Amino acid sequence: MSLIECVPNFSEGRDEATLAALEAAILSVSGILLLGREADPDHNRSVFTFVGEPAAVVEAAVRAVGVAAERINLTQHQGVHPRIGAADVVPFVPVEDLTLADCIPIAHRAGEEIWRRFGVAVYFYEAAALAPDRERLENIRLGKITGGPDLGSPHPTAGATVVGARQFLIAYNINLATPDLGIAQDIARQIRTSSGGLPHVKALGLPLASRNQAQVSMNLTNFEVTPPHVVFQAVEAAARARGVAIASSELIGFVPRRALEMAFNDLLRFENFHAARVLENALAAKLKESAR
Amino acid sequence: MSLIECVPNFSEGRDEATLAALEAAILSVSGILLLGREADPDHNRSVFTFVGEPAAVVEAAVRAVGVAAERINLTQHQGVHPRIGAADVVPFVPVEDLTLADCIPIAHRAGEEIWRRFGVAVYFYEAAALAPDRERLENIRLGKITGGPDLGSPHPTAGATVVGARQFLIAYNINLATPDLGIAQDIARQIRTSSGGLPHVKALGLPLASRNQAQVSMNLTNFEVTPPHVVFQAVEAAARARGVAIASSELIGFVPRRALEMAFNDLLRFENFHAARVLENALAAKLKESAR
Repeated sequence: MSLIECVPNFSEGRDEATLAALEAAILSVSGILLLGREADPDHNRSVFTFVGEPAAVVEAAVRAVGVAAERINLTQHQGVHPRIGAADVVPFVPVEDLTLADCIPIAHRAGEEIWRRFGVAVYFYEAAALAPDRERLENIRLGKITGGPDLGSPHPTAGATVVGARQFLIAYNINLATPDLGIAQDIARQIRTSSGGLPHVKALGLPLASRNQAQVSMNLTNFEVTPPHVVFQAVEAAARARGVAIASSELIGFVPRRALEMAFNDLLRFENFHAARVLENALAAKLKESAR
Repeated sequence: MSLIECVPNFSEGRDEATLAALEAAILSVSGILLLGREADPDHNRSVFTFVGEPAAVVEAAVRAVGVAAERINLTQHQGVHPRIGAADVVPFVPVEDLTLADCIPIAHRAGEEIWRRFGVAVYFYEAAALAPDRERLENIRLGKITGGPDLGSPHPTAGATVVGARQFLIAYNINLATPDLGIAQDIARQIRTSSGGLPHVKALGLPLASRNQAQVSMNLTNFEVTPPHVVFQAVEAAARARGVAIASSELIGFVPRRALEMAFNDLLRFENFHAARVLENALAAKLKESAR
């Protein structure tokens, strides 16, 4: 069974009736597993995480975009998070028996339905981008691209939706045993891709007033290249060089099993570990094989 | 469906024809899932891991012991691993819908068939032991018990087989970047339970002639108390104190998923990690829920 994940971001994080309507739209498609729903009132934004077979996930995403277009009026929107649409970003992520390449036509199909059914303009980004300058979401948001939407023209109240295919993103924070924000910012700069650090890492230094700690807040956009344990080691070394210890690590949302397998393999310096050495994996594979 | 695992150890790790005959005997029973087969030439020992319903697993184990008794001559055996039988140890392990207590009569039935069909003496150990001094495999191997085998008397060339029921065991070796056997033996003594080290750890220092390395060879008999990463850290510290580096780690057989989750949580110092944060676990839980 192929499984794909969709993590749509909507420009509504306050009105419970709208959040409930978005959830109902997603769950109106059978075979959808809703893993998470998070809303932030300051950002005035919500994120739903759901998984299922591709056709069901596309349908659930499209229906939710329809509800967003109907209920969210961007011209009256207030919130600190940048946005260009009522349904702002709709990424599709490979989970099981599916590659990133497989997710590209799936994203394109979803985009076509969004334009066709609701008259909401669509931009395609990341792996589903139709031109290199549209790969980065920031470029589309900031208008740093040539030409308009890939499909249609902006909806008067619902704007445009950015639809794409990307790898699983791990939201990972490391809290330092110091309130010194400068140190967290220095470490973030040292390890992030944009200033020559580790590949596929976005990082910011943030103050955590309630804890009297500074945090290195990160998105790992390709964990198979740069997994959490590699980031942990880099941050630990950078902190140690500044005389600071790590207080703890924090995960926002989910982490794929593969990231645990990579950490186990590397940190215990295995010479013969692989996923099939995990009892439950071996058993599941054999059961699948014998069911054929 | 009840699933039980059997992990027989045979005193042959070099002769491919014998290994193939052992495998064929196991697979001659229908419903057996053979998860692994590993052989080590220095140990001159092989380990098969298979799973299935209890009656099938008992029959497969008994047939393989018969092949071992026929093909392996202990009087001509050379290898660094201690042993008392051609089929040396035959443990039964609960996997699904089965407790450790359920595995005791299953082990006894297997032992009775081994003595009855092949004239190979049987000792029962761990949870299947018939006397407390027979619970520990080492006591049986070293003759530190009162009386002889639980069933029969030693076979002239195949010796005795130790049959038992136990919890999942992780066979874990750490190879040192030194051929100095004394150092591996020192470290083994330092970390093993029997000399006051970590709980539920059996450890031996062994020479690996083919690699010019010394090995700390271990069995972790309760990985939820002492998981592999804790052992790795202890061996690494003990080796470092002796000026020696770790060359690599090696897993024999399988490791339960839970051991990876424990390592990930501890080594990355998570404050909010738990199994439900693993995407595939969250998904499986939802699928189970939605199937109800």
